[in-house]
Parts: sequence; structure tokens; C-alpha cells
Amino acid sequence: MRNLRLDICYDGTRYRGWQRLTGNQSTIQGRIEACLSRILDEPIEIIGSGRTDAGVHAVGQVANFHTNADASAEEILFALRKYLPEDIGIYSCREVSPRFHARLNAKAKTYRYRIWNSANPCVFDRRYVTVLSERLDLSAMRNAAEYLLGEHDFSAFCANAKMKKSTVRSIHAIDIAQTGSELQITVTGDGFLHGMVRIIAGTLIEVGRGEREAQQIPMLFGQKREAAGFMAPPEGLSLMEVFY
Amino acid sequence: MRNLRLDICYDGTRYRGWQRLTGNQSTIQGRIEACLSRILDEPIEIIGSGRTDAGVHAVGQVANFHTNADASAEEILFALRKYLPEDIGIYSCREVSPRFHARLNAKAKTYRYRIWNSANPCVFDRRYVTVLSERLDLSAMRNAAEYLLGEHDFSAFCANAKMKKSTVRSIHAIDIAQTGSELQITVTGDGFLHGMVRIIAGTLIEVGRGEREAQQIPMLFGQKREAAGFMAPPEGLSLMEVFY
Repeated sequence: MRNLRLDICYDGTRYRGWQRLTGNQSTIQGRIEACLSRILDEPIEIIGSGRTDAGVHAVGQVANFHTNADASAEEILFALRKYLPEDIGIYSCREVSPRFHARLNAKAKTYRYRIWNSANPCVFDRRYVTVLSERLDLSAMRNAAEYLLGEHDFSAFCANAKMKKSTVRSIHAIDIAQTGSELQITVTGDGFLHGMVRIIAGTLIEVGRGEREAQQIPMLFGQKREAAGFMAPPEGLSLMEVFY
Repeated sequence: MRNLRLDICYDGTRYRGWQRLTGNQSTIQGRIEACLSRILDEPIEIIGSGRTDAGVHAVGQVANFHTNADASAEEILFALRKYLPEDIGIYSCREVSPRFHARLNAKAKTYRYRIWNSANPCVFDRRYVTVLSERLDLSAMRNAAEYLLGEHDFSAFCANAKMKKSTVRSIHAIDIAQTGSELQITVTGDGFLHGMVRIIAGTLIEVGRGEREAQQIPMLFGQKREAAGFMAPPEGLSLMEVFY
């Protein structure tokens, strides 16, 4: 059985998220699987590195799938590029070791949350940013981000209240950078709970607005969802890279 | 009578171009005029620095309009930003001298033609580039561009066959730059005929493909439209700046 890896980008605006859903709901996984199944003439299931929510984008999503078909990786790449809609792009399709598993082998991921922090218009990237024109205290946000680094129980940063498994995760780096009118919060960690990056972004925004003190961040670990900040909207979020 | 200047950007994808048309056809000028007329409660006509075709974008379009209304420039800016669709952005609205005329006072303009020159996907900027995956000879294109500099009769580069006025224009600079998969042709001149930048881009692309020799460019001046290259599609073109 062959195992193929796909490197994928998408503009998530039009989709109900990554994960295949029943019925006619349009998802990234569903679109790619439908395409591959037609190309290879057998039902194909792809394994993504993880889900992304409705409206969230990806610059570097990774998936793998198994097939017995004869088509070369180049032929599959060519056909995918031809038949997928223009808001889903495939960077590469290549044979990988039979053991490669896009989700289980992922060692870390980087997400970026983009905020257009100005009353000026953001016309060209409007689908990829969240507009917040109020002034944000970057230095307070950076202080708050420091407290999130390392291994903690991120229960308050998990949108899935019924999560029964461990909510302990490690954050390796958080960078907050301002370039012109744009503020980027870039987070790298070993894994992320459902909604975690958007709740981190929302909590940091509340600190930036002065609604929350940076020093109180450590008191959020192990708490219920309500303790942390709001879940920032999906359009500002992109999955940047998956590390193996 | 007050005279106000608007600095405008737009994603032209959804529009039939800059110029107001009769009926329900959506244009940038029409949208802004409808908005201003409602805000100021009097019919407003705006004067753009020039037209852009259907599907062409602007990073730095300029317009002016006259009014007797009391609203301050700040109030007008605020209301425009509130009521205009998200693909039209207003950078600024300010009082200018009664003599300022966005079209007649324009001394020069810069346009940029963006080509995504790769088989790799261009998902996020897909509305603002023309995709051409074939190899292009940049050095031949740069040689050809040199011949276009200066004052010439650009009749062959004019999409409007019935043009009766002079087709002589001056091109001050053409820069051809490659960054990653993107090729940008940036043209500055004192004025441009209808379709001129897209026909220049199409002609340079034909040189890049080896279908046309750089040295033959000077023979195109004063010729009929058919002598020059194809008109490159509108989505790659943006009006970058108007100089006064």
C-alpha cells in the first residue's frame, strides 16, 4: 500500500472547516477526498495533521492518504491542481514512508493570528485578518504571552467543554509583532486544544485593551472556560506550519 | 464651494470598472457617489484621476468632489468607511484648494502588473495576480522594456480604436522584478491610453515567451493595435499611485 503526503494551503472563508461532514456541507477535507476519489477511482480518506474550524485558513496544512492506484505522485498533483477550486492549493504530493501519519507524527505546529489594528481600510487582505481599530498595549500583551510559555493545563483555553482527555499542552514560543497597521500573534506549541489559539488571541486582546492584567494569566491554568478571554473570530487565524 | 479629495483603494474583482454606468451596473465611482449623495443629502459627482477597467484594482486611486454641505471631512470619512462595501477602502478625505482637479492635475501615474509565474498555487492573492506558469525570459523582457521608455506614439498600445486625440505618451520608468514566484511589472508614465498597461504587459510577456524579439519593439510605435501584443487580463493590474 502506497502512502502519499500532501502539503496544502487554503482560504477557509467559504468552508465549514477542515473536517469532512455529512450531507452537502463544504469542507476542505471533503473537497480533497472527493477529488482524489475521482482521480484514483477508489474511495480515498485523507488524514489531516489536525482540524481547522470554519473560516480558519492554512498556509501549511499537511495530510496523508493510502492508495493502491498506479498514478504517479506527479500525476496526482497535476490532477488535484486542475480539479480543486482556486481557494484550495496543493504545494506538493509525494511518496512517504508507510509509517508516516500526518496527525500522530506531528511534533509541533505554528499558528498565526492576524489583527488589522487600524481604522484605515484593509481591502486586499480583508479575508485573512480580524479588524480591531482600538489601541492595544503591545507591551502588556507581550508580558501576558510570557506567562503562557511552557507546559500548563489549558482547560480554560479549550472551546470543547466535554473534553475528557488531558488539557495539558506545551507552548514553545509566542511572538507578537507589529508591522504597519498589522499585529501578528504567532504561537508554536506541541499541540492545540479546540479553539485554543483563538482563545489565547482573545485573552491577549483583552490584556491589550486593559480589561485584564498580564499577571493574572497564571491563575487561568486548570480553570473553566469562562475564566479566560473571548474566542477571537476565525478569519484572523491561519495554520502556518506542521513540524514532524 | 468646498473641494474635497479622497484617497481610495479597491479590489476591482466585483466591479464593472471605475466609471459610473447607467442602470444597475456596479462601478466604484457609482458606489462612492451613491454613498456620498446619501451622506451629504445632495447629488454628488466625483472626479477620478482616471478610469480603471472592469476587474482592475487600485491601491492609490485619487478623486475629488465639490459640496456645500456642512459635514466635516472627518465626518464624511467616518460615514464613507461605515457605508461602503468592504472591497472599497477610503484612506483619507480632506479639504483641498478649490483648484484641485484629480484628473487634470495628475502629473504621472504608477501601475503595477502582477504575474504569478509558477505552477505552485497562489491561493491568498489569487484575485490580484494573473497566473502564467510557463518560463519567461526576464532579461529579454527587461531589454524590451528599455525600448518603451521615453516619449512615443503608443497607438498600437491603445485598446480604443476610435481614439482621435494624440496617442503620444511618455513612459518614465519600467521596472521588472521577481520575488519568489511573483513577477511584477511596474510602469510609471505621464498618462496612459485605454488598455495601455495591459497591452504593454501582454507584449512583454510575448517577449518573455520568445514569441517576439525585444529589438522589434521600436517598430511598434505609430502602428495599429494589431502590431502590439495581447491585452493581458485585468485581474493582474493595480493602479498604485497618482502623482500631483
